[in-house]
Amino acid sequence: MAANEFSRLPGFRDFPPEEFALRNHLFEAWRRVSVRYGFQQYDGPPLEALELYVEKSGSEIVDQLYNFTDKGDREVAMRPEMTPSLARILGERSRAMPKPIRWFAIPQLFRYERQQRGRLREHFQWNVDIVGEGGVAADAEVLAVALDGLREVGLGPNDVRARVSDRRLLAALMRSAGVADDRLLAAFSVVDKIEREERARSRDRLVAEAGLTADAAESILGLFDDPGLDAVRARFGDREEVAEALERFDDYLATLQALGFGDFVDFDLTIVRGLAYYTGIVFEVFDARGELRAVCGGGRYDRLLELVGGEPLPAVGFGMGDVVLTELLKDLDRLPETGRSVDWFVVVIGDLRDRALDVARRLRERGDSVAYALRSQAVRKQFKAAESEGARRVIVLAPDEVARGEAVVRDMATGDERPIRLDTLEFVGGS
Amino acid sequence: MAANEFSRLPGFRDFPPEEFALRNHLFEAWRRVSVRYGFQQYDGPPLEALELYVEKSGSEIVDQLYNFTDKGDREVAMRPEMTPSLARILGERSRAMPKPIRWFAIPQLFRYERQQRGRLREHFQWNVDIVGEGGVAADAEVLAVALDGLREVGLGPNDVRARVSDRRLLAALMRSAGVADDRLLAAFSVVDKIEREERARSRDRLVAEAGLTADAAESILGLFDDPGLDAVRARFGDREEVAEALERFDDYLATLQALGFGDFVDFDLTIVRGLAYYTGIVFEVFDARGELRAVCGGGRYDRLLELVGGEPLPAVGFGMGDVVLTELLKDLDRLPETGRSVDWFVVVIGDLRDRALDVARRLRERGDSVAYALRSQAVRKQFKAAESEGARRVIVLAPDEVARGEAVVRDMATGDERPIRLDTLEFVGGS
Repeated sequence: MAANEFSRLPGFRDFPPEEFALRNHLFEAWRRVSVRYGFQQYDGPPLEALELYVEKSGSEIVDQLYNFTDKGDREVAMRPEMTPSLARILGERSRAMPKPIRWFAIPQLFRYERQQRGRLREHFQWNVDIVGEGGVAADAEVLAVALDGLREVGLGPNDVRARVSDRRLLAALMRSAGVADDRLLAAFSVVDKIEREERARSRDRLVAEAGLTADAAESILGLFDDPGLDAVRARFGDREEVAEALERFDDYLATLQALGFGDFVDFDLTIVRGLAYYTGIVFEVFDARGELRAVCGGGRYDRLLELVGGEPLPAVGFGMGDVVLTELLKDLDRLPETGRSVDWFVVVIGDLRDRALDVARRLRERGDSVAYALRSQAVRKQFKAAESEGARRVIVLAPDEVARGEAVVRDMATGDERPIRLDTLEFVGGS
Repeated sequence: MAANEFSRLPGFRDFPPEEFALRNHLFEAWRRVSVRYGFQQYDGPPLEALELYVEKSGSEIVDQLYNFTDKGDREVAMRPEMTPSLARILGERSRAMPKPIRWFAIPQLFRYERQQRGRLREHFQWNVDIVGEGGVAADAEVLAVALDGLREVGLGPNDVRARVSDRRLLAALMRSAGVADDRLLAAFSVVDKIEREERARSRDRLVAEAGLTADAAESILGLFDDPGLDAVRARFGDREEVAEALERFDDYLATLQALGFGDFVDFDLTIVRGLAYYTGIVFEVFDARGELRAVCGGGRYDRLLELVGGEPLPAVGFGMGDVVLTELLKDLDRLPETGRSVDWFVVVIGDLRDRALDVARRLRERGDSVAYALRSQAVRKQFKAAESEGARRVIVLAPDEVARGEAVVRDMATGDERPIRLDTLEFVGGS
């Protein structure tokens, strides 16, 4: 036999049942938690007009799009993120909806990335958004959902840490150091890389890209020498804009505490998020050992809906990908056992096929899962099939018992055998 | 405000929560039924190498592909159907797997079709396949799954009809009428359209495309003047190949009867299915009034896995789309009510926010769904929000009751109010 000449595209995954079950383990946890917080699920198309992403999502995404011209000469792209679709959908209908809007989705997203460990070209992402509420209670609620989603799959504050900041606070600090408003995004982009770049390189970039003097650049970098909330408060708390941002942030942290997630959260001024559209509190969740990429990232984006032609509505949300989270759960050995299982396997001895089909039909009608051999086979072979299907019970139809209106049921875990009435499918003498 | 300048692509659907709930209603029914028959869920990538579809799926699909060249110069296509991916995935792993393999999937599929009612460019399709078993018991089991899936969403034999045939039987009949083996597919394609074309046109095509004499063509068309199974048996049952095919078909129908689906099934010799890869029993399910396109179609395809480089394994399966089925359920008024709902809405009077968050946290920890106002609001407004969230119960935290360690719970359906203990969240005097 020749080697398989067809293979899947690099960066894409197949989900045979054992992998699908793990994916479903995450999806179900995400759904349960979303519902628990009053969110409703939605979805959009995996293919959108290219223009929905161009200049809206930051250039880092547009360079990596799966985009093409369709047979109707439209420029289209496979969705690289969900938020633009959310904004588009709400743009058409949000005016008629009571606020706040609490929506979640679990879309598959696509990016043409250079391949490396953990970097696929598709992943599934849990997206959770509150739209129409600008206060920090919404910011806290959204992060609580993310952290509860992680807790739901077995991760605690020793496993994952939420690093939170506020672009409004960082902006206030930057402005006090002399950064002009139109250079704030450039300065944010330097801060975004501050942990990975040499200090000298960061200083040079602040001068070249954010238009600072060398002194002002040094003063900003000094923020990060002791970037705790208390240090920031002590050094800059007397400036009104900073004080206001700190008060807002304290309220945010207190709300997270009351919601039961204070233990998961660290203030971290270096978190700014790459995307240009964030406007307030931002956060990323990492594994506590710092070995993997972010498990989750999000924040407030109060201007996006307006940008795509909708009602001007404040919004806050996050995305949590399945790939990094699955890696982390694997590393920590927190993935569940996944295996096949059916409630019943019907074994037939002799010419009782129609009886077997009838039993299968009635067991299925009461909601049980049932398999049986699809052709006449030796009993030993049928039991082997029952094992490989993961059957919990085998029901054996043999001529003598069937003549008495009974069949024998074997519990496959214990080996116990008990008779069952064929007319009622109840154990003889009660269960 | 300018009109929304971004819109979704024609032929694609958004799924805001009320539409998503209907989609989920189908998906959940399909999953329940699949599991009940011992099937396991899998998935593949929505993007595959173009060559997986070219010449494997029949030209009607290839002309309608969403195909393009990716940034790595690969020819790729968004999946137009699931079976080639299934064959590819099994090609890599089926040798190590016990047979038969029972797998199902609910992929989204993409075709660039000319737009008309019910013809979208994407749809979701329930795919169910048994691989590794060539006998008719597998054919019957697969159709039983399809019909049980329809029954699960409220459709009975008066609503939907399965039209079943067998290409082996049709081939045997055609050969007796003088159709050469290499013209069988051409003749099948005429039969496929026999209900929609004039008899003279069908006869001309049988002569021109299937290489028949005018007499032989007329004799084949005569098959369809009285195409019942008894008529076929009476006229052609003495030919060995036909008799063999009829016996197989009788066994198939008897199995469907024993599985409880005999009432849904009609023999229909005009069913051949468009795709070139079917090799045996084929079927389509239609609404009983015949107003819509097929709800479901499938059959046996014993050579496909080999074609894509895998183990030569017999296989049988079907695809059921969500679009036509949803139309039918809408026409018959069988779609469920979908609305928002949460178990609890927490209403706060006065300065009790942290108590409210704590109550929300504890209700959520026991698995209940909880919403609350994300900013300080008048009680009337909070009750209005509770209504628009579809809250079943409102829990009111007011200073006097909280001071006594209690809160009032209002049942939103009945208006009844009862006190609850805040420490245990149990009703005072028991529930």
